[in-house]
Amino acid sequence: MKLRALKTPAALVDLDVVERNTTHMAERMARLGCRLRPHVKTHKCVEIARLQVRGHFGGITVSTLAEARLFAAAGFRDITYAFPLPINRIEEAASLGSQLDRFSVLLDHPATLHELETHSHRTGVRFSVFLKVDCGYHRVGVDPDRDESVWFAAKLSQSPHLDFRGILTHAGQSYRCRTLEEISRVAGQEREVMVAFANRLRQAGVRVDEVSVGSTPTMSVTQDLEGVTEARPGNYVFYDAFQASIGSCSLSDCAFSVLVTVVGQYPDRNKLVVDGGSLAFSLDPGPRHADPECGYGSFITTDGRRPMPELRLVSMSQEHGQIYGRGPIDFERYPVGSQLRIVPNHSCLAAAMFDRYHVVREDHVLDEWSPIRGW
Amino acid sequence: MKLRALKTPAALVDLDVVERNTTHMAERMARLGCRLRPHVKTHKCVEIARLQVRGHFGGITVSTLAEARLFAAAGFRDITYAFPLPINRIEEAASLGSQLDRFSVLLDHPATLHELETHSHRTGVRFSVFLKVDCGYHRVGVDPDRDESVWFAAKLSQSPHLDFRGILTHAGQSYRCRTLEEISRVAGQEREVMVAFANRLRQAGVRVDEVSVGSTPTMSVTQDLEGVTEARPGNYVFYDAFQASIGSCSLSDCAFSVLVTVVGQYPDRNKLVVDGGSLAFSLDPGPRHADPECGYGSFITTDGRRPMPELRLVSMSQEHGQIYGRGPIDFERYPVGSQLRIVPNHSCLAAAMFDRYHVVREDHVLDEWSPIRGW
Repeated sequence: MKLRALKTPAALVDLDVVERNTTHMAERMARLGCRLRPHVKTHKCVEIARLQVRGHFGGITVSTLAEARLFAAAGFRDITYAFPLPINRIEEAASLGSQLDRFSVLLDHPATLHELETHSHRTGVRFSVFLKVDCGYHRVGVDPDRDESVWFAAKLSQSPHLDFRGILTHAGQSYRCRTLEEISRVAGQEREVMVAFANRLRQAGVRVDEVSVGSTPTMSVTQDLEGVTEARPGNYVFYDAFQASIGSCSLSDCAFSVLVTVVGQYPDRNKLVVDGGSLAFSLDPGPRHADPECGYGSFITTDGRRPMPELRLVSMSQEHGQIYGRGPIDFERYPVGSQLRIVPNHSCLAAAMFDRYHVVREDHVLDEWSPIRGW
Repeated sequence: MKLRALKTPAALVDLDVVERNTTHMAERMARLGCRLRPHVKTHKCVEIARLQVRGHFGGITVSTLAEARLFAAAGFRDITYAFPLPINRIEEAASLGSQLDRFSVLLDHPATLHELETHSHRTGVRFSVFLKVDCGYHRVGVDPDRDESVWFAAKLSQSPHLDFRGILTHAGQSYRCRTLEEISRVAGQEREVMVAFANRLRQAGVRVDEVSVGSTPTMSVTQDLEGVTEARPGNYVFYDAFQASIGSCSLSDCAFSVLVTVVGQYPDRNKLVVDGGSLAFSLDPGPRHADPECGYGSFITTDGRRPMPELRLVSMSQEHGQIYGRGPIDFERYPVGSQLRIVPNHSCLAAAMFDRYHVVREDHVLDEWSPIRGW
């Protein structure tokens, strides 16, 4: 089947590019001496996770318990739930722990520890846990410069109810970078903060088996992961217009795109309107710090081979996408009914808008894969 | 069941408020002598559409063909697909037309007319159509000041393949307003542009049965719909933090909220983190033109009774919501594990992130309803 036959808006996954991205990251991490525990939150799809773990030990990272259940049912045996465990989900975490070789949770607050211990005391279930550390993103995690963080880690490691695995961070500040050099600096910071904190814990008598890092920008560019045991990038499977803009990848590395159909031409306004809006692309504003003119994505030809920088997806409402020309639009090239293919700013959010992905090679549709959603 | 028992993030629909909003709009339109053809895109849910059409003729408006199929199967007999018909979906539109008393499509481009006529000539199917008119929003629609628009309407009305219904507009510019007075002015413009264009068409010999308008802001405040035959507001069912900010409603009229759980406290940063991020709220930036400090929604108490303006949902990643205090947060009030209830900026987009709605009265859960998604 050809793209022409698809109903739009349609989510396209370029299989060649996914295979290249997953192979490349797996080789990269092997070369840097680091186990890869890929994040699956970008696609939430079993077939793609199987490509991600090739050449590594098979462990994965999830962002929701819905993902955890799906991947557990699909045969994945070692899963880390990389979100501060909500205490009202402890029962579910315990249940997953009993089904898998390892189901690890993470925390950074004494109240969560208290609830885990209470549950464990009552049921006998032991939890595999990571301490979440803030390496500079300042979203969640303990401050590695504080003595309290060392005491808290010691408490985790001494608990009879926990299997303390080690420390884990996410260098989300890498998304604020503008260049490859800036990302390299953040990658250095991520590693150094974590290795230093691990060493501080070890000096305090805390056993730290795992030092887990990972963001797609930092893992795409770092040349040094000494002291790090595992990496958890996820977005690299698809990459996206954001990653291409800040230097993690090039546009030709982007595997996820949205196919839309032109439904209107407005020559007076130098504008096309297509049948994909915020429910197809999400409203991620993209890398405006790096490219104020980015719009909501980057255009590529429908065969996926070439960029089409002459068009910009400037605004969206629920179902409408409004596309303006960077120069005067040649309207004969984009007749009503023609298709356009757009790499969204943020593939994690855009992919979550779809119940199925059309797996393609250039403009041939090979298969259909389904993600999970919800929590 | 009580809210405490729900897994979070959870979508809550306050039934009392939905009933009040739907009754109020139905009475308002009856009083103004206008038929109500409510839009269902905000909720995409049969139970809620049934509340919307009470007291009116039963026609509805949809934004996707997936909605059209769901509501047709649920017994709705008169549906307008208020999006410029993509020419690759003509077969589906024809099929819906054959199942229903009336399935109307809209267009504003000669290429779409050509394709409809070609299909009709081949199959004998007649299409019920509206001409989409731009009343100042400048998203789609023909310019009512141009002679070409009159000629195009005449062409539609003379086509043997079409049942030309009339003209239709959406005053989306009302969302750029800051006050009730500004919305009133847009409502006046919407009506005047459409009535004047209808009269111009009639003078040119074009029969115009329907003059269809509608946006939630304008339909919530207008006092004059003379010359308008039907109104298509949709968001008023739920309203949202955006509508409350620009003056279409008050916060207590907002029927849709997202329930989240506190997973972390960061007193150094005066911050809470909750288990709802951009996949629960969407990333609609909200009415920043009216309230630069709006964040991603407005907090209400978990029983839905009172606003909690002391908290702001300032930033989100895929699953994390970061909440800051407007003043110093009293962290004892929001312990880890406690729930918070947030009215999102844009209920249409946030509701679409969920596979089910929990129907509530205050903090009691009464029922569970499911929306449709996709296209």
